[in-house]
Formats: sequence, C-alpha cells, structure tokens
Amino acid sequence: MSAPPRERAGRRPRRVADALHQLPFRQPRHRFPAADVLSADELEMIHNASLRVLEEIGLWVQNDRAIGLLRAAGALVDGNQRVRIGREIVAEALRTVPSQFTLHARNPAHDVVYGGDYIAFGTVGGPPNCSDLDGGRRPGSHRDSQKFIRLVQSLNCVHIAGPAVAAIDLDAESRHLDTAYDMLTLTDKVFLGSGIGAERFNDAVEMVCIARGLDRDEIARTPSLSTIINTNSPLLVDGPMADGLMACAAAGQATIVTPFTLAGAMAPISLAGALAQQNAEALAGIALVQLTRPGAPVVYGGFTSNVDMRTGAPAFGTPEFAKGAMATGQLTRRYGIPYRSSNVNASNAVDAQAAYESQMSLWSSLLGRANVIHHGVGWLEGGLVASFEKMIVDAEMIQMLARTLEPIEVNEDALGLEAMREAGAGGHFFGTAHTQRRYGTEFYTPLLSDWRNFENWQTAGGLDATQRANAIFKTMLQAYEKPPLDQGIDEALLEFMARRRVEIARRK
Amino acid sequence: MSAPPRERAGRRPRRVADALHQLPFRQPRHRFPAADVLSADELEMIHNASLRVLEEIGLWVQNDRAIGLLRAAGALVDGNQRVRIGREIVAEALRTVPSQFTLHARNPAHDVVYGGDYIAFGTVGGPPNCSDLDGGRRPGSHRDSQKFIRLVQSLNCVHIAGPAVAAIDLDAESRHLDTAYDMLTLTDKVFLGSGIGAERFNDAVEMVCIARGLDRDEIARTPSLSTIINTNSPLLVDGPMADGLMACAAAGQATIVTPFTLAGAMAPISLAGALAQQNAEALAGIALVQLTRPGAPVVYGGFTSNVDMRTGAPAFGTPEFAKGAMATGQLTRRYGIPYRSSNVNASNAVDAQAAYESQMSLWSSLLGRANVIHHGVGWLEGGLVASFEKMIVDAEMIQMLARTLEPIEVNEDALGLEAMREAGAGGHFFGTAHTQRRYGTEFYTPLLSDWRNFENWQTAGGLDATQRANAIFKTMLQAYEKPPLDQGIDEALLEFMARRRVEIARRK
Repeated sequence: MSAPPRERAGRRPRRVADALHQLPFRQPRHRFPAADVLSADELEMIHNASLRVLEEIGLWVQNDRAIGLLRAAGALVDGNQRVRIGREIVAEALRTVPSQFTLHARNPAHDVVYGGDYIAFGTVGGPPNCSDLDGGRRPGSHRDSQKFIRLVQSLNCVHIAGPAVAAIDLDAESRHLDTAYDMLTLTDKVFLGSGIGAERFNDAVEMVCIARGLDRDEIARTPSLSTIINTNSPLLVDGPMADGLMACAAAGQATIVTPFTLAGAMAPISLAGALAQQNAEALAGIALVQLTRPGAPVVYGGFTSNVDMRTGAPAFGTPEFAKGAMATGQLTRRYGIPYRSSNVNASNAVDAQAAYESQMSLWSSLLGRANVIHHGVGWLEGGLVASFEKMIVDAEMIQMLARTLEPIEVNEDALGLEAMREAGAGGHFFGTAHTQRRYGTEFYTPLLSDWRNFENWQTAGGLDATQRANAIFKTMLQAYEKPPLDQGIDEALLEFMARRRVEIARRK
Repeated sequence: MSAPPRERAGRRPRRVADALHQLPFRQPRHRFPAADVLSADELEMIHNASLRVLEEIGLWVQNDRAIGLLRAAGALVDGNQRVRIGREIVAEALRTVPSQFTLHARNPAHDVVYGGDYIAFGTVGGPPNCSDLDGGRRPGSHRDSQKFIRLVQSLNCVHIAGPAVAAIDLDAESRHLDTAYDMLTLTDKVFLGSGIGAERFNDAVEMVCIARGLDRDEIARTPSLSTIINTNSPLLVDGPMADGLMACAAAGQATIVTPFTLAGAMAPISLAGALAQQNAEALAGIALVQLTRPGAPVVYGGFTSNVDMRTGAPAFGTPEFAKGAMATGQLTRRYGIPYRSSNVNASNAVDAQAAYESQMSLWSSLLGRANVIHHGVGWLEGGLVASFEKMIVDAEMIQMLARTLEPIEVNEDALGLEAMREAGAGGHFFGTAHTQRRYGTEFYTPLLSDWRNFENWQTAGGLDATQRANAIFKTMLQAYEKPPLDQGIDEALLEFMARRRVEIARRK
C-alpha cells in the first residue's frame, strides 16, 4: 500500500507553478472513428427490443405528475402506476431533442458544448466517502468537498464541476444551498445541480440567476446547469427523481438521463439485454423531458456495466463495460442525442487496477464517441470514494488523451529532412537547429508521470505515481486562486441562502 | 512503494488452479476500425519523405555483404559505406513481401498467424535487469530467465516466447544456446531467436530443426523463428545486425525490422520527421530481407516514441507514441506488411503510471491494427527491467482487451425480455432463470482485479494490484507444467549444444 511521501525537513518549497504542467482549458474533439461493435441489424434489434419493453412491460412511475404527462401523450396507465409507452411517443420526443447545445459558465471562457464531436470531462460526483494518503478513507465533509471544488477549478482538463463528495457534516435539508454557493464562488465552471426533488434543483437555478444576473427565461435560453437523473433500474422511476427531471426540463436546463443498468443485478445478465433495458429507460426519461418542455436539452447517459457474480459487487472498466460504452454510442448516434459516459473503476486503491480499469473506460468512451465523460477525475471504489490522488492520476490520463486527439503536424519543416542531414547517420538530434527550435513545445509535458532513470528516481525518494499525486494535489491546492466575483452578487447569494434556510427550517 | 504480501502462518494454500482465471490460448482478431490519424495526403508526404531520405541522404551500412546485395540491386554506394537506395529498389522489394504468414510452434496448437486481422502478443524481451517485490531490482540470471519462460508458457494470452531477461550469469558466447534450449524445452510456443550476428541465429535454426525433426528447407517453408532487427537510428545499420537480418531471411524465418526512432534523440523531434525516418529505415531493412530471399516473411516494426527533453530519458506510452503507433499502422497497410507494435511504459514501479502508459500503448496499437505486440507482458522502466509483477498486470490487461474484441451476442434470448418480465419493475435479476442459465460464462472473470468491497478487501489484507500480482506469478510458477518432449529430441539438442560449446570455446 502506498504511504504519503515524507516531508523533508529544511527542503525549500519549489515554485508552486513549476510543479503543475497543464494543457490550457479546451474541449478535446473526437478524431478516432466510432467503433461500431454492433451491426446495423443488431442495433435495430436492440432498439426494437427497448420499444417492446416500453410497450409490453412498461415502467413503474412513482409520480402522478409524470404519469399525467405521459398519459396525455397517449401512454397506457394501470392502477399500479404501470405506464406503457408507445413507440410513437418516443418518436415524437426524439423529434424535438437538440443534437447539440451549450452550457454557459459564470465565466464565458468556460462555456461547454455538448454534442457533435465535442468532448467534456466532469468531476467525480456523489460518493459518500473521500480519501487521501494522509487522512485515509473517511466520510465526506464540507472541508473536503470544498477542496475537491478548488481542484476542479484548478484542473484545466475538467470542464464540468459538481459536488465530488457529499458534505455530510452539513444539514441534509439545506446542504444543497451550501454546495451551490461553493459552485458559484470557488469555481467559475459549469456545474451539476442536485436532481433529487424539484426544490433543490430550483434553488440552484435561482442562485445561477443571481450569479449571472439573468431571469429564469434568460437562463432557459442560455442554460448553465445539468443534473444526473438515474432511473431506479429495472424499469422504475421514483418520485423525487421524476420531480428533479421535470424541474430541470421545465427550467430549460440539461437533464442527463442515466439508467443504472448493472448486468446481472439491475438488468439482464446478457449485455444485449442490459443495453435494451438501458435504452428503454433512457428513451422514457428523454420522452418525459421533451413532454415537460419540448426542445429542452437532454443527454443520453450510458452506464451499463456488470457485477461480480460471486459477490454481487459492481465492476467497472470491464470488457462488458467497454463493449457497452461503444454500443451505447451507436444508439445515441441513431437518435442524434448527445452521449454521456464515465471514467470508472472498481479498485479499492489508487493502483495499477484503478489505472487500467479507468483507461478501459476512457478509451471505450472515446471509441463510442461520448460527448460528456462524467466521473472524469477522482472516482474510486466503484463510486463509493472520491480520491484526491486519483484526481491527479485521472487528470494526467485525460490530458494525455486530449493531446493524442490533436492532429499530427505534417509539412516540409516537420518532416525534418534537414535535421536528418544535420544529425548525420549514427549521430543524434539533441543539438540540431530543428530540435532547438521546437524543443519547448513539441512533446506533451506530464503532470504526474516520472521519466527519470531508476537511480535518479530512487535518489529523489522512489515515489510511486500515487505518492507523487499526493504531493501534486496539495501543491495545486496551495496554488489555487479563487475566481473573481462581484461583491454585490456574493451578498445577494448569501441573502437568498439565508432566506431559504429559514423557510426550510420552518417546515421541519 | 509496494511491499510483497506477508505470508500468513498456518494459512492453508488454496488450490493452485483456482487462483488462475485465464482465457484459452487464442489469437484475438481486430474489430475496431483503424484510426487514420493521417489524411491520405499526409500519408503520402511521409512516404515520399522517407524515399527521399533513402535516395538523398542514404544509410550507413557497416556490412560489406549487405552493401553488395544493395549495390547489385542498383543502390549507389560511396567509399564510406554510405548506401543510397532508389525508390524502385523499395518498390521491387514490396512486391515480394508476404502480407500474411504463419509461424509454426513445436506444439501445432500454438502456431501463430502474422498479418491480416490477427493479433499476437509476445513477452518482454531484452532487459538486462529483472525485478519482483521479494528480491527487488537485480541483473538477470539464468534462474530468473527460466522463471519468465515458464510464465510465458503458462500465460495463455502470450503467443510468442523469448528471452525476457538476459541470463548474464551464463557465458556470453554460448548463452544463446542455453536460451534456445530453454525455449524448446520449457515452452512449446514460437520464440524469438537472437539476431545479433548470423552464428547465433543459425544455432537457433539448427535447434528448431532438431526439435521439429525437419531439415532447413522444410523449416524455411514452415518457419518457426522470428528475430528483432533494430536499426541503429539514425540511418545506421551495424555489422552484426545486418548479419542477423540476412541469416534470418536466408533461413526463411521472420525478420521484424524495428527502427529505434526516439524523437528528439535518434530521430527528428517532430513526429512526422521521426515517422519519415522510421519508415526509411524500415523500408531499407525490408528491402534487404527481400534481396536476401525474395518472399521471406518480414514484419514492419514501429517503435517511434519520444524522449524527455529535460533529461534525455526515453518516454513510452506517451501521446506522441500513441499517435505514432496509429500513423505507423497506416504506413504498414499502405505497403501490405504485417505490423509490429509494443506494450511499453517508462515507469520505475509497477504502479498507476506503468498501467496507464501501457494502456496508451495497447489501445493505440489496436487502433493502428498492429498484428504483433511485443513486450506484451512484463516490460518496465523503459525496457531496462523485466518485472514479474508487471507480467501479471499486463496479462490481465491483454485478456480484458481480447474479451473486449469479442462480438456482443444479440438474439432473442440475449435481449432478455423474459428476464425483465420475471424480475419486474424495481426487482432484481440475481434469481431469474435467464441469469441462472448464463451465470458461469457471461462475464469476463479477472486474473488480477479485485472487486470485493472495501471492508472485505481490507480484511483480506488490503493488497494492491501489484502485491496481488506477486502472489499470482508465484502461484503460476507453482502450477507450471513442463510441456512434453521426446527424450530422443532432448538428447539430440543437448548433444548439439555440447558440440557447439566446444567449437565456440576453441575459437576463443
């Protein structure tokens, strides 16, 4: 097991900025071809199976308002909240789904495009626990939550902020206000609002309105927020989730409908079956978004993976996950809907397993041409832990992929024949004019990787990647700068929160 | 840093076979589309630049017999062994290169196809050092070399054996005999012969003839051996390498021509330039193979990576490596030559960096549609170390990729509507008939990954992936079974070696 690197007494801190090699904030664009792992016929079989699921089996929708919307569109509802959704309802919904949209950050330089050939990475979101080598594994606190948000602001490769870990030391009823405030003050990137119930989401919308100085109509035209709506697989949509979905859609913000289809547990054990069920649940959620507000931005979230059949534990970054991520890409392209995937793993430590399972997730998401990759940095232990060290390991991996997606420069100078003449057969290129000219920018400079030879590496402490990541995230927190915010806006946010806290407390 | 897992006194050893979850020996087939990172024009620019390198700058060939062959084909040679090779010589050579061939193992079940959509993985080869958590980093010994060969025989995902680590405690002049003997007795897979000089390679050919009971003509028609020929980049072919190449080609065995083009050091710092130089050196080597024996099997080896410009240390699995691996695939497809790439990294420990750099190498090799992936298991520290733990980490990664390359089953049963009806909305699938029927085989079962929840993992010792890999390679060595070999063949091999040892000693 890795231990945190020991502090060296008397060592002078090196300049903080020197330690952090980052690419600029920019959305990578897809350049690899889509891996179509399903034939056209197979894709249609899965599509048709999912329509049969919606028509023949139906969804259990635990929300009368959602049932009302679906019934008005022609769905058949029985007395047990069982809703059977005809394919014409789905087809109608798909007609109004935007294929691409932009989420607007408080800082316009951080706006994010969803769809097309754009890729956006989000932070890990939702774990109850967090960990680092110094403090070990522990329940999330407000202090830890804020540290993660500062890291997200600092990491140029992360485009979407969100509550990495739950601040469980704050009051559960008003915690979402503190989180939204942190999102609007500690970072100026777009962020995820809580989609559990309408009230929490609407509070976030109000606070975004205050921060951007816009009203709700304007914010609907230039959305800022997104939220994750997980169906309760199999084939169940619970009341608060449906409320959250409808609140998000009504506000014109982006709903990311993500069925939680773990094959063998919450979905059929066969990948085709899990995909059919995922597709049924996703299409139902997307239809509900469009019935709430036609044209509202919505994203198809693919999260199909499998469980360990011996223990029931979820597994991620597996071959089944990878094939599912590529197949889901085919489904989303068939519908013309932006596609969300994830950077996930099931390791209990920030070790080789965490890295290779994450890489499996990332590459298969790229080959599925995912537009949004959530849990992009920091996810560990199947989502039960947000890891500070994993944030840095993932940031390095994402930066490397972003750089790999950039084109190769091919022109007379790059082809380098003059350099070859200068170096000569059996010579070397260190000193050629060509090398000197391109020296500073030609190669990717790592944030985390250590390429020193063994002796130098050992002399410097022999730290493995996880130990180095520990030092880097602390350096990054040290170098963090709070983005500027107008004082009047800050006061208005605090005033809104104070009023809402009173309202919430009064209701108890 | 990882420490080896502690032995628990009194713990009963679990059944050896239970610990080893392997897929059967089989060559994976490509299913992902090739990532064409170069446009057709850019590809031609690199191709043409490499022809200009051969024609205008030429190669320094430190071998008179090789110069003779090239001169006879029309190459221009000056007094300093500078050989300028015209494009018509290259074009003529490319006409006789086989696009696909088979290497024949001592055990026909282990034959390996090179080319087409086939993928073969080889072991790490060549490092002077080896390491494990128990014994640390140390120079390779015969004992360690044999352990690696036993692991290669045991690992179903490895198709090509080879000397993972140099046995530096054996006499340098006759070491190749011991290695070839180990290759023919401890494993029954195809293996790499030494390509440094003709004599060593020919000894391996003779020993293969004995082992397979064939003469040299028969072995040329059904080749068994391959060898790696590295040009001494830039643009230099040394005497022993040229001798090795011509010996391999003359024997009808497979030459893997692999320029060692590290951008910024042995090749231009720009990727396009490094690729142009790689291509020039590869085409020259391939031409020399075909001039030696038209139609001899040959593989285009891509190994372009970059160095750390601050230290000069080589880096692997970088964005530049990945783009190079995909671009090289385009070049090899243009020529219709089987393509060799590598699973490489520059980490000093079997940690997250080792895993993510290896994954970068592996996925980019798949997207380049590489046919042979050398250093597939065990490579560490930029090739200075063969790691026992990394063998297992890599085997897991390769198995996962092999499984990911298998098609998704799509049919009425797999689509699982009956299972969804049985589970019911909000239910679960553990107990459905569909799950029970498919339970044992549906998912990939890991060799190394640990999916237990944190508490169970911690109770079991909280071992990270590298520590678990340590236990697994030892279990695998315990379970190793020597493949059968006719006693008469064994005696003939020993007799040949004894005779050759005398000849070699006499010459000293």
